[in-house]
Amino acid sequence: MPSPPPSDLTAARDAILAGHLTARAALEDALACAGAAACSHAFLARFDASARAEAAAADARLAAGAPLPPLAGLAVSVKGLFDVQGQVTTAGSRVLADAPPAAADATAVGRLRAAGAALVGHTNLSEFAFSGVGINPHHGTPVNPATAALGLGARIPGGSTSGGAVSVATGAAWAALGSDTGGSIRIPAALQGLVGFKNTARRTPAQGAIPLSTTLDTVCAITRSVRDAARLHGLLAGEPLSVDPVPLPGLRLAVPRTLMLDALEPAVASAFERTLDRLRAAGARVEEIAAPALAEVAAINAGGGFSPVEAWAWHRARLAQREADYDPRVAARIRRGAAMSGADYVDLLRARRDWIARMTQALAAHDAWLSPTVPVIAPPLQPLVDDDAAFFATNAALLRNPSVVNLLDGCALSLPCQAAGEAPVGLMVWHGADADARVLGIGRSIEALLAAHAAAWGG
Amino acid sequence: MPSPPPSDLTAARDAILAGHLTARAALEDALACAGAAACSHAFLARFDASARAEAAAADARLAAGAPLPPLAGLAVSVKGLFDVQGQVTTAGSRVLADAPPAAADATAVGRLRAAGAALVGHTNLSEFAFSGVGINPHHGTPVNPATAALGLGARIPGGSTSGGAVSVATGAAWAALGSDTGGSIRIPAALQGLVGFKNTARRTPAQGAIPLSTTLDTVCAITRSVRDAARLHGLLAGEPLSVDPVPLPGLRLAVPRTLMLDALEPAVASAFERTLDRLRAAGARVEEIAAPALAEVAAINAGGGFSPVEAWAWHRARLAQREADYDPRVAARIRRGAAMSGADYVDLLRARRDWIARMTQALAAHDAWLSPTVPVIAPPLQPLVDDDAAFFATNAALLRNPSVVNLLDGCALSLPCQAAGEAPVGLMVWHGADADARVLGIGRSIEALLAAHAAAWGG
Repeated sequence: MPSPPPSDLTAARDAILAGHLTARAALEDALACAGAAACSHAFLARFDASARAEAAAADARLAAGAPLPPLAGLAVSVKGLFDVQGQVTTAGSRVLADAPPAAADATAVGRLRAAGAALVGHTNLSEFAFSGVGINPHHGTPVNPATAALGLGARIPGGSTSGGAVSVATGAAWAALGSDTGGSIRIPAALQGLVGFKNTARRTPAQGAIPLSTTLDTVCAITRSVRDAARLHGLLAGEPLSVDPVPLPGLRLAVPRTLMLDALEPAVASAFERTLDRLRAAGARVEEIAAPALAEVAAINAGGGFSPVEAWAWHRARLAQREADYDPRVAARIRRGAAMSGADYVDLLRARRDWIARMTQALAAHDAWLSPTVPVIAPPLQPLVDDDAAFFATNAALLRNPSVVNLLDGCALSLPCQAAGEAPVGLMVWHGADADARVLGIGRSIEALLAAHAAAWGG
Repeated sequence: MPSPPPSDLTAARDAILAGHLTARAALEDALACAGAAACSHAFLARFDASARAEAAAADARLAAGAPLPPLAGLAVSVKGLFDVQGQVTTAGSRVLADAPPAAADATAVGRLRAAGAALVGHTNLSEFAFSGVGINPHHGTPVNPATAALGLGARIPGGSTSGGAVSVATGAAWAALGSDTGGSIRIPAALQGLVGFKNTARRTPAQGAIPLSTTLDTVCAITRSVRDAARLHGLLAGEPLSVDPVPLPGLRLAVPRTLMLDALEPAVASAFERTLDRLRAAGARVEEIAAPALAEVAAINAGGGFSPVEAWAWHRARLAQREADYDPRVAARIRRGAAMSGADYVDLLRARRDWIARMTQALAAHDAWLSPTVPVIAPPLQPLVDDDAAFFATNAALLRNPSVVNLLDGCALSLPCQAAGEAPVGLMVWHGADADARVLGIGRSIEALLAAHAAAWGG
């Protein structure tokens, strides 16, 4: 009887190291998944040949007694806005389809490659990463594989790292390199039952990635486990770190009532409450707090926030020449940035700085804050393709919670907290800047707690 | 025969510590200087009573065997844009004349007070710190005491820290707390024969100061010696530091040809060249370099740069209500900021970041760069009062060199390099961010070298 496939990248690496699996065999499995129907529209381009070469090299190194690289020749996908040497970086657009191939890897891509990743392809995304829904009118929209497997029909993948999440959820990659400006890693992770970690932005280099908001953009990854998230974060930051679970008893966890619990779908509310109950039962001190500063976010972003104006700065010349090639929904949002004056932008920077100072004080009393990553389970796809108002309302709902952490310059982990057989629900564990290792350590404990419950119930 | 007065704050502190001088006597001397004609228009407000109390407290502490505080009850002046508890902060304007008194000290003021400074008053400045000339139409313009003493008539003090520099040059203060956004510490220091140190901005807190450019504003001081500059910087940064002279032999010093040597007045060129010769004779490796990146500064600032848009963000509501109360020359420059779009500002931030990266590479090959602080000696005052075109041309000439270091996010020391009997000329020793201690250490050696020459020649 064949052994079950490894549960995550770390387990796959261990299996290769122990001789139970070859990188080449693991890669062929991943490529087969990438070619299967569940992965339709997830990739913009495939890099099968170079990925096979990398996997073979890992096997050869191991056979020769050389150290196995950190990513062990295993499949990793790359969001289509990162430069990969020799490939065209389109950011899911038609506007850049005729751009020259990238002369060099983006820094993040180079770091993954140096760590031995088998880069399997450029993944699909919301055009220029500009939405949390994941619909792409040019290249097709991948269907959410997690909800599809539950028989819930064609639902959105979440975005903007739509294809990256699908590549991980379907087995086409162990990890997906992506970016998170307002939730673009955490939203698809939450909707597809995966782990998404938005690290402190300045810790990972954005060089070689097409920007959305230079203030808020974060380079990070989607994985299948929190330990994999820590591994990928360490490699991307250029500071490998090992994260042990943080004991739950006595841990001070805050649940902010303001904004983050508004308009929760019942499935989300019940999974979230059940998770809080388990945390309390495990000895954590879970406290609801008011957190009134969260009510200020809407006023700070009333002029559109950072993304439209910063995207407009990058796109305005292209938009003037080729507006017809843009997704109209993306072009409309970018155009909002044209209305912002320099002084409004200066005021926005100052308002953000002042708000971060207030939030930092509020955060200090707890080890981490907990919220639902998004207030809904993945909604059906077609109504959002068909109707602009529904699209924009859903987009705003999806971005609401995760974008708070980008404004905060903080870090946030989304991990699945639904019960077996339920549509995925994300639990967001978050804090301020540079709390990355702590958030990951707490995330490991919560993940283990939830897994223990699932095992006890046969989930 | 009375002993000569101490040469700088450090010497005065030593004299007090040795019992040769009391803080109270030193303060009375300073107050007498503040009341003398040479100091006319230098102060917006005097704090004689509290200054006397502070000096008396220093003497009492010493008499009781308690440690003498770092500033030893000695006179320090405060630029009129820093909050001093109980005083109105007008920034040299009429617009804020009826504002309520400050409820608390600015952080920088509080740090000086905690270090035992006798705060002698709020000093005059260009309205809202918005020019390098130092003319103030509301409160009068202090005449440059250094050029006046040479019989050169009424010349500009330089700004914006005009009154602060005059307070130090006349003996009304040992040091002047100020701010430097494009040269506001270094320009008056250079024109008045003083030491001005613009530190790395983020190292000293700007809280409690009325902003000009939140991106470029730096909180720093004017002093009579480099060792005093190091002392004041350490106190303002909250990290006291002691700076030893850096040996000159073998030191790699760059003299960038681009921009910084354009249109030098002969007096400035000869003082600068003579200083370079002395440095070479002392064993330093002084190399002229092209530094082509300096030619990009004009293009980066073509849209007005940071100050107008950031000032406009702060002033627009007041300017709409009370434009008639503004200095028309200041209002005109602030209004330029209204024209900048948010996207232009985003582009400006990106252009600055990219330019700093190129400059940082160029700076790495040398221990420090040397330039004239400003290309002229202090020009006569009245023509610049009378004529807008002459005012703006001189202002641009004064700001040209020092503002490069603000754009760079670097640090720069201006120290006098003229011969005895000549009008003051500033030598600027500069480098990138966080090179503060090194620039100060090199400055100490250059100061000692020039003093040795002056002594040898009887200067």
